Amino acid sequence: MTTVGILGGGQLARMLALSGAPLGLRFLVMDTADDACAGQFAPLLVGDYRDERALAEFAGRVDVATFDFENVPAASARWLSERVPVFPNPDALALSQDRLAEKTLFRELDIPVPDFADVATREALDAAVQRIGTPCILKTRRLGYDGKGQFRIRTPADVEAAWQALGAQAEAVGLILEGFVAFERELSVVAVRGRDGEFRAWPLTENWHVDGVLSASLAPAQVDAALQATAIAHARALAERLDYVGVFALELFCRNGELLANELAPRVHNSGHWSIEGSETSQFENHLRAVLGLPLGDPAMRGHACMLNWIGEMPDAAPVLSTSGGHWHDYGKQPRAGRKVGHATLRTDDPATLAQRLIDVGAALNRQAQVAPVVARLREAE
Amino acid sequence: MTTVGILGGGQLARMLALSGAPLGLRFLVMDTADDACAGQFAPLLVGDYRDERALAEFAGRVDVATFDFENVPAASARWLSERVPVFPNPDALALSQDRLAEKTLFRELDIPVPDFADVATREALDAAVQRIGTPCILKTRRLGYDGKGQFRIRTPADVEAAWQALGAQAEAVGLILEGFVAFERELSVVAVRGRDGEFRAWPLTENWHVDGVLSASLAPAQVDAALQATAIAHARALAERLDYVGVFALELFCRNGELLANELAPRVHNSGHWSIEGSETSQFENHLRAVLGLPLGDPAMRGHACMLNWIGEMPDAAPVLSTSGGHWHDYGKQPRAGRKVGHATLRTDDPATLAQRLIDVGAALNRQAQVAPVVARLREAE
Repeated sequence: MTTVGILGGGQLARMLALSGAPLGLRFLVMDTADDACAGQFAPLLVGDYRDERALAEFAGRVDVATFDFENVPAASARWLSERVPVFPNPDALALSQDRLAEKTLFRELDIPVPDFADVATREALDAAVQRIGTPCILKTRRLGYDGKGQFRIRTPADVEAAWQALGAQAEAVGLILEGFVAFERELSVVAVRGRDGEFRAWPLTENWHVDGVLSASLAPAQVDAALQATAIAHARALAERLDYVGVFALELFCRNGELLANELAPRVHNSGHWSIEGSETSQFENHLRAVLGLPLGDPAMRGHACMLNWIGEMPDAAPVLSTSGGHWHDYGKQPRAGRKVGHATLRTDDPATLAQRLIDVGAALNRQAQVAPVVARLREAE
Repeated sequence: MTTVGILGGGQLARMLALSGAPLGLRFLVMDTADDACAGQFAPLLVGDYRDERALAEFAGRVDVATFDFENVPAASARWLSERVPVFPNPDALALSQDRLAEKTLFRELDIPVPDFADVATREALDAAVQRIGTPCILKTRRLGYDGKGQFRIRTPADVEAAWQALGAQAEAVGLILEGFVAFERELSVVAVRGRDGEFRAWPLTENWHVDGVLSASLAPAQVDAALQATAIAHARALAERLDYVGVFALELFCRNGELLANELAPRVHNSGHWSIEGSETSQFENHLRAVLGLPLGDPAMRGHACMLNWIGEMPDAAPVLSTSGGHWHDYGKQPRAGRKVGHATLRTDDPATLAQRLIDVGAALNRQAQVAPVVARLREAE
């Protein structure tokens, strides 16, 4: 029997394990926390990702390894890859951990990106702000996650405060200045590439963030076929260049009908959770199929789906459970401010019904603001 | 967090645990075997169902209990139900363990059944064979499973051999003689009833058995609406009479367009496995929703589905995995002759595509005989 090792034991590892069980797989999850929620359904090895003894034990107990989050140290991934097959490959992981390298690659592949500049010194920051203009965002090159390690520069007067906040990290971590994109939409392509190079993408998804954290996703995104084809071509070009194996997400902004690449997430992605019920094969199952060299499954949609993230604590389940096409995902976590603790997916055969169900569920849970932008988008298309 | 206890740790318990994880549930599975396959994804308590010490530990660790097989001793279920809520109730379990009581109840509820007779003595057997006619089947009243404890009487000359085979069990276990039904179809209703009496049924399923073991299921069954309504009404009448909570299957024969009830399985059922991908809410999730008093999910179909059982050993997965709508279920068991080790479900939007995919998969796996009757049924409807 094949054992899949997963570095990181959060909800993504949990959903990977639940999706992989029917394939006859077993799992071993490694996490620094002894209450990592994937541990409720898979054996859990508690250890630090930099601890070679823990990594050696992990490597000895698995046949293949993958990740549930992208901040596993690339050096650990490389060490591991000398002992056991690791997918995606550590170079792809390392690239996605470095905003500057990532955006540079996007440009090389003719994937449009917002303006950006490498910022090594205070003087470089001044020059970059002058060239790119305000508003813009100063970010650390590495280890940013959900809005941390970022400083928004609204006017040139903010430059000093931005440098105060992040300048100390310029040498060790690196900084990047990015032009602010007044986008109309945030989109993502969730796609999968197999060991043999086979490539498949789920339909484009539209996403809404609140305070830098995903709040809602709608699939398929209400975009024209040309835009969808362009987005998927970008994702494919990236996957091929990186010799990527597994599922990944390419996050995109849409401004004036044009796509700008934001970032690559080298793992199953929150904006693909709807695929569990909304497509023929979920992102979780297809990630495992890819990692194991099995034939990839059909990512075709079944109707229309909206995912609502639950942040901090779980709401009452009853309104979703009593809705036809309402699916509940409680990650089995303790409540904590800002923490992703679960999600719901509403699936219907047509967009009008989806809009009505969102309105009903939003009202029942007093979460009208969370569903409103999705409902508005669905109504536009009617 | 709620912990659901499951008596029996086979594939049904395994699929219950996998389906219940997204509801935020935890599980404890009890089985006599330390390699019970549900134990790969849920904590496993190894013990005999008659051992009160093991049952007490089980009761102390769970909030609610249910079953993955119907031969848990009814006395153990009753003992447990004095300590923790048990669904379905032990009386329903006991009824389903007694063919005579079950068929008597069917008659009381005006659910047609094949002729049957209580057989306590050799003389009673002779009289029953004369009244019911041959062919007929002598069965033990209790503890039959998949064709064991049965003897087919083809002509009156077989009566002596039947009595030799089973007569010794007449006193302790009881015997029942059942008329043989030359049926055209075997059908099942898989249905669920909630704690509040809410009742829902999946579309009728047609089943094909080989050597007494389920080989293939097709949903929806190709039957007219009246037959489907009658079958579901029978299931509902039974569930209400038994104050049943959870999922169950009512197995039926169809002869000359009329339904005859065969037996009640008081648990999630092999003929409902297609519901994982083929319906909006699977039988596994709805069983847990019912047991926990949560709102029931929509059992509506998504297209057409055929389940193929894998008996003895798993075939090559690739032909199913590479088929659009092909879903694989490996129970993580060791191969063994006659053992249910997994299944596949093919789901499509229309019956003609389903027939073609079955032909292709059957050919690729050299299992033409397994798919042939399903293909023939689908072709009849075209």
